[in-house]
Amino acid sequence: MRKPIVYLIGAGPGDPGLITVKGLECIAAADVVIYDYLAAPVLLQHAAPGAELIYVGKKGGDHTLPQEDINALIVAKAREDKIVARLKGGDPFVFGRGGEEAEVLVAAGIPFEVVPGVTSAVAATAYAGIPLSHRKLTSTIAFVTGHEDPGKEESGIDWPALARGIGTLVFFMGVKNLPRIVAELTGHGRSPQTPAALVRWGTTSAQVTVSGTLADIVERVRQAGLKAPAIIVVGEVVALRERLQWFERRPLFGKRIVVTRARDQASGLLKALSDFGADCLECPTIQVTAPDDPGPLDRAIADLKRFDWIVFTSVNGVSRFFDRLFGSGRDVRALGHLRTAAIGPATAERLKSFGLASDLVP
Amino acid sequence: MRKPIVYLIGAGPGDPGLITVKGLECIAAADVVIYDYLAAPVLLQHAAPGAELIYVGKKGGDHTLPQEDINALIVAKAREDKIVARLKGGDPFVFGRGGEEAEVLVAAGIPFEVVPGVTSAVAATAYAGIPLSHRKLTSTIAFVTGHEDPGKEESGIDWPALARGIGTLVFFMGVKNLPRIVAELTGHGRSPQTPAALVRWGTTSAQVTVSGTLADIVERVRQAGLKAPAIIVVGEVVALRERLQWFERRPLFGKRIVVTRARDQASGLLKALSDFGADCLECPTIQVTAPDDPGPLDRAIADLKRFDWIVFTSVNGVSRFFDRLFGSGRDVRALGHLRTAAIGPATAERLKSFGLASDLVP
Repeated sequence: MRKPIVYLIGAGPGDPGLITVKGLECIAAADVVIYDYLAAPVLLQHAAPGAELIYVGKKGGDHTLPQEDINALIVAKAREDKIVARLKGGDPFVFGRGGEEAEVLVAAGIPFEVVPGVTSAVAATAYAGIPLSHRKLTSTIAFVTGHEDPGKEESGIDWPALARGIGTLVFFMGVKNLPRIVAELTGHGRSPQTPAALVRWGTTSAQVTVSGTLADIVERVRQAGLKAPAIIVVGEVVALRERLQWFERRPLFGKRIVVTRARDQASGLLKALSDFGADCLECPTIQVTAPDDPGPLDRAIADLKRFDWIVFTSVNGVSRFFDRLFGSGRDVRALGHLRTAAIGPATAERLKSFGLASDLVP
Repeated sequence: MRKPIVYLIGAGPGDPGLITVKGLECIAAADVVIYDYLAAPVLLQHAAPGAELIYVGKKGGDHTLPQEDINALIVAKAREDKIVARLKGGDPFVFGRGGEEAEVLVAAGIPFEVVPGVTSAVAATAYAGIPLSHRKLTSTIAFVTGHEDPGKEESGIDWPALARGIGTLVFFMGVKNLPRIVAELTGHGRSPQTPAALVRWGTTSAQVTVSGTLADIVERVRQAGLKAPAIIVVGEVVALRERLQWFERRPLFGKRIVVTRARDQASGLLKALSDFGADCLECPTIQVTAPDDPGPLDRAIADLKRFDWIVFTSVNGVSRFFDRLFGSGRDVRALGHLRTAAIGPATAERLKSFGLASDLVP
């Protein structure tokens, strides 16, 4: 990739699978990742081993670094001729302040690209079983934020227009604003019977949805003890959730399962459990490491000529053996005279990746 | 993955890098892919080799299959106990009729999941340098469609609310509706000086943007000869494009470059050119194939004992040699007595992947 460059990347709504392919590629290519509070911190694991990871925190308006300092940091890192991944929750241009950062980069003469992301307005509702549009119900969708510029006058929000003129409304305003939102909408003519829902931690295994109508949603949310971070959705489409909810109905949703396999071998099991809705915690109780004393293996390698057979009893054994073999300056030609055995098909497969057939597999 | 299951997948706006990681995984896992007209047909190449690909076409309301038949097809395929990927442009729940398909699946008792996508309302504008939100300019964004249910009364659109109550407006209504949109907005009080733009083929190398104000956008679009598919964006944020446009300014944007390398070796070059904005056409003029007559190689392999050195002159040569070696029932142990030479570092690297060091690299 050309350098310097800054990628303004939308990390998506929380489910790490909902980042874009390009977003993930940019994280992997970055020299520096400057990231906000993320609902999917696991995405940072895709950064290159030597990459610098800088948290600039942003959670419901609570900034670890002021925006001006974030801007200065991005510019400073790019000026070191680096690839900078600026990672934000959701989409950078949907209430993400990506526009301001882009302006700063233009002023500094630094090339940038925008990698849009799936906004939680779309994804958290989809995971709650609420389609934002439906041909029979609405042809307009509005996104509304409460985090406005303090320099703007009290409210830039035209409540009568939202109340009467828009089919589906999604508020990025925080749970504490719910009573005001409900009062403004009903006060300006929206029917109290209009369905409404809040989705907390949408698209993650901690997702909680509370639904009702404008008449009772405040009380329902109070009873449920629902807190930020949540998005608020109002409109006839919310009633579809009754039938369409799927995420919270998956067989293992709400189950937290500890997977104790060694980290580099756990992915298949984790994927299968996650497909059924489980929240998996990786807690490897096994860690495969090199032997404390490589002496016996190294001596055997130095003396390979003495052996007739070489027997591999695990996939890990294959990898470790070849690490030491290559490390000793030898390669597989040193095995030319040996017969090979593998304990099972996975071990035989790994052996094959080193160019070796298994003469014996039980 | 569990079966049967239907994934309602958003394919994103056109740039194939803007599909989600999960969306791509679901395409790869699918037994059947049922797809609409896609701005990024290359995504279908990720389907498994044996997967059934069914085009049900949808382009500006022109359906190859009526929605009822699409619904029936999805249900029928799922009932064959298959993994069905239902792939739609943009996001399935933002004017994508995904809600209707989900309703049919629920009625049929078939499990489904929604994989949200990046909608073109967000991405095409971002690629045109237009952030949908900006703290200084707006706290509301609305998406509006014109493809309403014919059963609905003339217009469900509240033009006064859109004209006066919403900061940024994005219309999914097609270029031919532009004069009416402009007339409705200005007729209901939106200033004719409000910036407006159309983005055609957004996020692809064919992207074209025409911008102006509500006063002159109709004439500018006419002069530019701009046609569907395009989205229309109206609001003060559109003026930011002047400074923030980046996609159309990349050094190779608008250049179509033919890459003639063999297909399986072209990816690095394609990536580099694309990073600079080029529209690359893969036209391999070289195809690396097995020799018509493998006899000489097979005889040399049968007679390896006669040789002292083995010299690899290309990466392809390494792969082909090991194909025949393994095919003959031998493995790298047959090379135990040979010294190895590689013509360069890439060839040596490939050799290493078969467990062999290169004794000589010029």
